[in-house]
Amino acid sequence: MSGFRHVVMFVWAEGTTTGQQEEVAARLGELPGVIPQIRSYSLGADAGIGADNHDFVVVGDFASEEDFLVYRDHPAHRAVIDEYITPILAGRAAVQYEL
Amino acid sequence: MSGFRHVVMFVWAEGTTTGQQEEVAARLGELPGVIPQIRSYSLGADAGIGADNHDFVVVGDFASEEDFLVYRDHPAHRAVIDEYITPILAGRAAVQYEL
Repeated sequence: MSGFRHVVMFVWAEGTTTGQQEEVAARLGELPGVIPQIRSYSLGADAGIGADNHDFVVVGDFASEEDFLVYRDHPAHRAVIDEYITPILAGRAAVQYEL
Repeated sequence: MSGFRHVVMFVWAEGTTTGQQEEVAARLGELPGVIPQIRSYSLGADAGIGADNHDFVVVGDFASEEDFLVYRDHPAHRAVIDEYITPILAGRAAVQYEL
């Protein structure tokens, strides 16, 4: 398999509600229907096993780095970041790599 | 698809050589042949697009949380962590979630 994968994790700020977290997941989950460059997209809230874990992760697969950049800069994606993620964001970790 | 996914990212310490990073990838890449609970396993060094990115990521899929815990605690896995990862580790971020 070849392609380009984007992985990003978030830590939510103290006081973030379950509803706010679910809203992020719901809004991100709409993106594969809006951004055709997304080949596969997986989201999840941390299961709570690791003491120092981040709270949420997104794994997105693309055909190429170019397709990832289309996703990264797509207005629908930026809107989710600006309206739902940034307001509750306390930490972020990301890697992109060739599959 | 159902299952349980483990995602972990590392930041390598300043002065880490390319050889040391390749050694981590090579040693981790041997684990699917040793730990049958690993259903799929993907490794990658960061492509260098994001300014604040972590340096390396592992995405491991398991049938269940129980299978992930077998992997987490497996002596072959712990040996890679102790001998190759910990000596060059400057930062770590992880999430486990239900697929």
